[in-house]
Amino acid sequence: MKIHLIAVGSELLTPFFRDTDSLYLTGRLNDLGLDVAAKIIVGDEIDNLRSAVRTSLAEADLVFVTGGLGPTGDDRTREAAAAVLGRPLILREDIVRTIEKRFLRLGRPMPSSNRKQAEVIEGAAVLANPAGTAPGQWVEIGKKTLVLLPGPPSELQAIFEAEVWPRLSSRRRACLARLVLKTTGKTESEVEDLIKDLYPKEEDRRLTILASPGQIELHLTASAADSPAQASAPLTALALELKKRLGPAIFSEDGADLEEVVGRRLRERKETIAVAESCTGGLLSRRLTRVPGSSATFREGFVTYSNPSKRKRLGVPAETLETYGAVSAETAAAMAEGVRRTARTDYGLAVTGIAGPSGGTADKPVGTVYTALSDEMKTSVERVVFLGDRERVQIQSTQKALDMLRLRLREKEDG
Amino acid sequence: MKIHLIAVGSELLTPFFRDTDSLYLTGRLNDLGLDVAAKIIVGDEIDNLRSAVRTSLAEADLVFVTGGLGPTGDDRTREAAAAVLGRPLILREDIVRTIEKRFLRLGRPMPSSNRKQAEVIEGAAVLANPAGTAPGQWVEIGKKTLVLLPGPPSELQAIFEAEVWPRLSSRRRACLARLVLKTTGKTESEVEDLIKDLYPKEEDRRLTILASPGQIELHLTASAADSPAQASAPLTALALELKKRLGPAIFSEDGADLEEVVGRRLRERKETIAVAESCTGGLLSRRLTRVPGSSATFREGFVTYSNPSKRKRLGVPAETLETYGAVSAETAAAMAEGVRRTARTDYGLAVTGIAGPSGGTADKPVGTVYTALSDEMKTSVERVVFLGDRERVQIQSTQKALDMLRLRLREKEDG
Repeated sequence: MKIHLIAVGSELLTPFFRDTDSLYLTGRLNDLGLDVAAKIIVGDEIDNLRSAVRTSLAEADLVFVTGGLGPTGDDRTREAAAAVLGRPLILREDIVRTIEKRFLRLGRPMPSSNRKQAEVIEGAAVLANPAGTAPGQWVEIGKKTLVLLPGPPSELQAIFEAEVWPRLSSRRRACLARLVLKTTGKTESEVEDLIKDLYPKEEDRRLTILASPGQIELHLTASAADSPAQASAPLTALALELKKRLGPAIFSEDGADLEEVVGRRLRERKETIAVAESCTGGLLSRRLTRVPGSSATFREGFVTYSNPSKRKRLGVPAETLETYGAVSAETAAAMAEGVRRTARTDYGLAVTGIAGPSGGTADKPVGTVYTALSDEMKTSVERVVFLGDRERVQIQSTQKALDMLRLRLREKEDG
Repeated sequence: MKIHLIAVGSELLTPFFRDTDSLYLTGRLNDLGLDVAAKIIVGDEIDNLRSAVRTSLAEADLVFVTGGLGPTGDDRTREAAAAVLGRPLILREDIVRTIEKRFLRLGRPMPSSNRKQAEVIEGAAVLANPAGTAPGQWVEIGKKTLVLLPGPPSELQAIFEAEVWPRLSSRRRACLARLVLKTTGKTESEVEDLIKDLYPKEEDRRLTILASPGQIELHLTASAADSPAQASAPLTALALELKKRLGPAIFSEDGADLEEVVGRRLRERKETIAVAESCTGGLLSRRLTRVPGSSATFREGFVTYSNPSKRKRLGVPAETLETYGAVSAETAAAMAEGVRRTARTDYGLAVTGIAGPSGGTADKPVGTVYTALSDEMKTSVERVVFLGDRERVQIQSTQKALDMLRLRLREKEDG
């Protein structure tokens, strides 16, 4: 079943808009094993609205139109849908009375403009609105269905749950299973090259790659007619093969972010950490403490932006800073060792680098970052040159540092 | 000129998605006096993608397609657009070399899958991508234009600013003026109540309120046929009245965030700052150092999560911690004074509180936060109970701390 969502309203086409309704509908339809094939967002102009409804009805089996059911001159969804279907709008006096009663409860008369909310497309089922004045409409056209719902989220959700969900449940196609593998340390194309022969050929399975700075995610979905177990079986097999190919690059199979994975392992091991950072300016501490319960493992963080601060707080020797510079493997190592020593933690994690936009040299261009991890056994340092703007370099740097810690913890568990 | 935006990617059709790219494009097109008539979001399936491009090219004069230009098997925007236009894709060896160079800078060979990113629709202008591998494409078909841009926001924005903006400026319809007033310290309804009689009645002017944690923004737009001055005149008058009503709650009129405003004033005054934070876990340092050039004013940050850390790093007296607790006005003041003293800066800024989800008491419920600011004159402390989850409490806490500093700087400049 191919589904389109059409959201109506000129305010949806401003730079400030967040599309709550379509995210809600997508989520609930997914719960029924139904995918959304396309979302269309149009303004209030009747021409655009008509052409969107016409196109979607031609392409999809089930079309939701949200918004444009209010009482004002801007609200033209009923009119546009009726025109596309070539059916008249019929004023239903029973609905007028329901709306009047609602106003009465608010202690005021119904403005005459609200009468148009009682206009129903010929042949449509009326979907009662417990939370507002505009009822929804459910129109069947041969094998296709057009559903009109009001835009305010509370009204849309109330009608969906009471009237739409039961109607859709009866025709639901399948159970949907979903799995997310998160990786770090490889680029999108490296991941792609390792797994490209695994893209499922079957209609009912899908593998999607999603890239963000320092993180590549694999989203797996599958559907099956009979049971959730039947849907998840092929995913489990596919996930197993992906894990074989990608190995330790995979850090999460349950949606957890890198800081959550690392925080959880530290808590399990009852180990503690302290952090020293310069070019990431607090982001590394921020990420580790974002997770509730982080106070069990996170002891302290130092944002040592200046050289005196690196010396005084972390005991980085003046000679190290002079000889190798603040952005160097030697300084990174001294920062990690220093923060571990002064905070008396199991791990010291450090970042120093050039986030940009200025400050680069031929030797150490903008994006050059050293991350260091120190524990009772050893201190390791890694150098990477990250691409992108200041923010991207900072995010990737913290990702790298957290990943060093994750791999060290993994090593200990294996060994 | 009728504009359609098509966003491509199956991940955009999940319930988790935020459509950064279309909001950015809408904003920048509005800046040029251009409105978006419709947005279409489709998955990676080539059929849906082709039909979206075909429909939009039939209806609109200018069509942007964002996403689906990556190197993977899912990335089929080039292919779909070429098919709709009935033009071949041509592999450009010069672009292959540019991509290879980019990988070389990362110290690795280009995976073979990236070659397809060098495929260009016949007759298209190539839009260089300074921030990634996939170039954009600008295709003119008679009087219509099709623009392909990569999905990652940093790449899309870099290409838009350097290549698309100049091309569009030359054909812009009307002059649009835009003004953003950012406020903090008042709720959305407080702001609304103060200004609600000022909503413009005129068709060509608009006032929108936008709320985010700890920040309410007023967006003013106006358009005029003839000149930018004609468009901005009514905005200036409206802004003047809004500023009278809202007073010092307004912190920015040029789009700058609170950390930028504060950072700029500190740099102008050649003053320095150090930060001590507990419940915000590094976010306050992170915000102050987000701004390029912050090293001129920001000296050090301490994430003192534990009591020993507050004592040892900031010299908070053990008696203060015992008598009043780590979350108290007395501890906040001692943290601000301590960090100023040890870092030898003009200002010490501190936050301590209970971000949640647990740790609240009857006296100090979750969301209780103390912010403190110390300078050579005095130390001030404020207590607020913020609502919302851990993340919201943390954001609002840093907003409050930065605002204390802003108001102190303002006071000094006035006095």
